[in-house]
Amino acid sequence: MNSIHPALIGSLSSTASPEKVINFSPGPTSLPEAVEKQIAANFQKPGLTSLALSHRSPEFIAILEHAVNTARKVMAIPDDYEVLFTHGGGHGQFAALPLNLCHEPTDTATYVVNGTWSARGCDEAKRYCNVQTIDAQDTKTGNYLSFPELTEEIIDKESKYVYLCSNETVNGIELHRLPKLPESRKHIPLVVDASSDFSTKPIDWHGCGVGVLFACASKNIGHPGLTITIVRKDLLGKASPLCPGVFNYTTNSEAGNLWNTPATFNIEVVGLVMDWIEREGGVEANEQRSIAKAKMLYDVIDNANGFYATPINDKSLRSRMNVPFNIAGGDLALTEQFLIESWEQGLIGLRTLTPFGVGDYLRASIYNGITLKQVTTLAEFMVKFAQKHR
Amino acid sequence: MNSIHPALIGSLSSTASPEKVINFSPGPTSLPEAVEKQIAANFQKPGLTSLALSHRSPEFIAILEHAVNTARKVMAIPDDYEVLFTHGGGHGQFAALPLNLCHEPTDTATYVVNGTWSARGCDEAKRYCNVQTIDAQDTKTGNYLSFPELTEEIIDKESKYVYLCSNETVNGIELHRLPKLPESRKHIPLVVDASSDFSTKPIDWHGCGVGVLFACASKNIGHPGLTITIVRKDLLGKASPLCPGVFNYTTNSEAGNLWNTPATFNIEVVGLVMDWIEREGGVEANEQRSIAKAKMLYDVIDNANGFYATPINDKSLRSRMNVPFNIAGGDLALTEQFLIESWEQGLIGLRTLTPFGVGDYLRASIYNGITLKQVTTLAEFMVKFAQKHR
Ligand SMILES: Cc1ncc(COP(=O)(O)O)c(C=O)c1O
Ligand SMILES: Cc1ncc(COP(=O)(O)O)c(C=O)c1O
Repeated sequence: MNSIHPALIGSLSSTASPEKVINFSPGPTSLPEAVEKQIAANFQKPGLTSLALSHRSPEFIAILEHAVNTARKVMAIPDDYEVLFTHGGGHGQFAALPLNLCHEPTDTATYVVNGTWSARGCDEAKRYCNVQTIDAQDTKTGNYLSFPELTEEIIDKESKYVYLCSNETVNGIELHRLPKLPESRKHIPLVVDASSDFSTKPIDWHGCGVGVLFACASKNIGHPGLTITIVRKDLLGKASPLCPGVFNYTTNSEAGNLWNTPATFNIEVVGLVMDWIEREGGVEANEQRSIAKAKMLYDVIDNANGFYATPINDKSLRSRMNVPFNIAGGDLALTEQFLIESWEQGLIGLRTLTPFGVGDYLRASIYNGITLKQVTTLAEFMVKFAQKHR
Repeated sequence: MNSIHPALIGSLSSTASPEKVINFSPGPTSLPEAVEKQIAANFQKPGLTSLALSHRSPEFIAILEHAVNTARKVMAIPDDYEVLFTHGGGHGQFAALPLNLCHEPTDTATYVVNGTWSARGCDEAKRYCNVQTIDAQDTKTGNYLSFPELTEEIIDKESKYVYLCSNETVNGIELHRLPKLPESRKHIPLVVDASSDFSTKPIDWHGCGVGVLFACASKNIGHPGLTITIVRKDLLGKASPLCPGVFNYTTNSEAGNLWNTPATFNIEVVGLVMDWIEREGGVEANEQRSIAKAKMLYDVIDNANGFYATPINDKSLRSRMNVPFNIAGGDLALTEQFLIESWEQGLIGLRTLTPFGVGDYLRASIYNGITLKQVTTLAEFMVKFAQKHR
């Protein structure tokens, strides 16, 4: 029987000893070690576990308020925004957004499409509103390699919102700062999918006219089953009658995040991650760590004399969260050897069996759960591998 | 300052020692002790935690398949049904059902309304289809006390489905067996909200013409953030174009429950609960335990010479999951004394601050996580309290 090596099918069960394992998965992935230890310790405590808390109990309400308030503090979320914990992951918000912001199906929303996730968000919106697309696909390669300039000509003045994804997890394109809409379009709220970069850099909420920003938890701030959705209050009350109750920002904010049973334990975990960011110096310090981690990998790639390549040439757009790279121009044998050798040393998650892959590229995802030291281990492995096979 | 006793605001932090605490919350609530221990032990293992597993990894796929297959085995789910793990809780399914089964907003769906949850489900459906209501509200009291007979006259022949809630968690009404539709209506699929009784009795899938059955996890089979939704395959492919992708049964079943990131850890927990049911003798043995637990409480109530009362007189409809009872006809002082004394002994969750309460009634919820021995403790407390205060 022809048995395929586990490293090639995205196995996480490296043969390296557990303390050597480093999880570079694009999400779900590992949380900061201190947070993981806290969760494990909480499950050892006598009494009710976190999973058993009634969402109506004062004990859970305290956990919920702590998560909301710490997120507010860490991300400097102004008072005129609601912090909601929503169901349905990122894709849930893809539908919830037009359903909350476009009262009529004839309303227009503007979508910047510059990668896998903004394309998915845009497709979902087409069910509920009139979508104006700003497509940044590279006509030569068919890939997404850039972010368009947002000029007034390309944004409908009547648009209910301008949507963008601040970090394209698959394509490796990140906006290190949110853009500002042109003066004549400043009345239009910006809607941001920050699923894979939330908490790793400051957000200029008012300055950039952010209307809604959401992030599914399972990359930087928690585990699957929860999304944080931050909504400017003047946008409440505009939902379409077709909006499912569970997606309705207005009723959920009126109910203080308890319109139905929220993902209680997941919310607790987000609170723990927010505490961790605060302890470690806040969002500015967290951004500096991200910059240092990403630089280390991109330097290896750029200094490998072409042995490694990353698709995004414009350095100001390179993702600090997800570093895509190929090996010897995408050489299959070398790529598989890289995957197997790295996996045996405990470096896992560099290729997942996602339907959204981009060709030959591997991808190192370096969220909050990954330390600079752990990135160094990967960088050193890459340097050695290049030396051996160049 | 007038400080209110914690027992009266639904506190779970009883002053009794942790090993004495028994959680009678209506959900979220405690899981079977053996499952809670397994979860705690899993978090102590070296290597990746359950929260860190990529949903595309073979390790998680194995967990997912195990949960699906064990649920199938325990609940004898036939092969012509899909087992889906869905987002959005019970309320998510309130919207997902009409959106999946009614292609056109002019399609009719029939709703049996005999309690809080079927009323909420019915209200949500009105956004998406033409709702025919069979309302079982008691005209004298305004309460829900019965379940209507399902005759052909009251069910539209063209109805896309007949909806019912098999256990009304708030009102304490349970169908111990699902009804069969009259011969001339057998072509209509039955849709069942089994959120608070799933896994506690066998389901006659084909015999009762079940089309869809769903259960949010946080009562009997897991914790919040996940719903199990079981769909007969011939009902796939009928979704409205307005159905959010994340709620679409068809695309989610085609994607093997991986259309988007599922609540990975929550799914693992459901698998552990299904294992537990199997180890403890399967669904029939589980039903016997439920019968015995409920009988113990209703016996105390019925033998208290009116000191306790429960709203549902028809014993064949009394819920085995949620036992509502009031004290001395709803006497406020005695009710509060009962809550405080029981709470001090570790009996918690008998009143939560839900907006869906039914008047003066307290409620003992006795799901899979509660043992007969634990119910005995409550029963004995109730007997003593009645003796003292009658
Ligand atoms: C940027 C971005 N948006 C949305 C999603 C989709 O999230 P979900 O799988 O929770 O629907 C992802 C998932 O990887 C993502 O990276
Ligand atoms: C029978 C029933 N259906 C639906 C729900 C609502 O579930 P959720 O809060 O997950 O939306 C509940 C919650 O208690 C319930 O008991």
